[in-house]
Amino acid sequence: MLDAAFSALADPTHRAILARLARGEATVMELAEPFAMSQPAVSRHLKVLEEAGLIARRVNGSRRPCRLSGEGLGAVDRWLAMLRQAMTANYDRLDAVLAGMETGQGKDKP
Amino acid sequence: MLDAAFSALADPTHRAILARLARGEATVMELAEPFAMSQPAVSRHLKVLEEAGLIARRVNGSRRPCRLSGEGLGAVDRWLAMLRQAMTANYDRLDAVLAGMETGQGKDKP
Repeated sequence: MLDAAFSALADPTHRAILARLARGEATVMELAEPFAMSQPAVSRHLKVLEEAGLIARRVNGSRRPCRLSGEGLGAVDRWLAMLRQAMTANYDRLDAVLAGMETGQGKDKP
Repeated sequence: MLDAAFSALADPTHRAILARLARGEATVMELAEPFAMSQPAVSRHLKVLEEAGLIARRVNGSRRPCRLSGEGLGAVDRWLAMLRQAMTANYDRLDAVLAGMETGQGKDKP
């Protein structure tokens, strides 16, 4: 899931499609026009995004509109949260070191 | 930046290196051992991560320890925030529709 989601997000066309779907659901036909792509080309991109859990499609009569899906985004977010927490912890450690230097007990305290 | 950062994050070895650096900075030598990789192989991975703004290196005598960098993570986070906001807005719209069904013309009420 993570490999597929990050890999899908690395493609600027995929990100443009997701940005379009952020404004509301759309069909293949509605996506093909603004992107000046053929419908089969759009369908191939949508397949990658769907397999990555970033979009979902529903059947509405003969239409199959696409919308954003929280599944892939959730997986990506949970993984990135770990990095964010680590960076915040690093800054907190740095703050503690700087605070120690200011109050004069600095350099031998880790 | 976004292409490079998402592309780098799509590789499980890169994510494992970032997870290791989340615990604190490390040199090429310190990374090579737990990953059972040669130092040149580790260096190639670090180069990709550095170009993606996900890590930074500093010179400390003859050592060049790596640490997480907020640059790439920030770019990725800002882009994903747009998707998260869109999904929250979608849920809010759904809530409003459901609330309207409950308070309004109750005939569809289960």
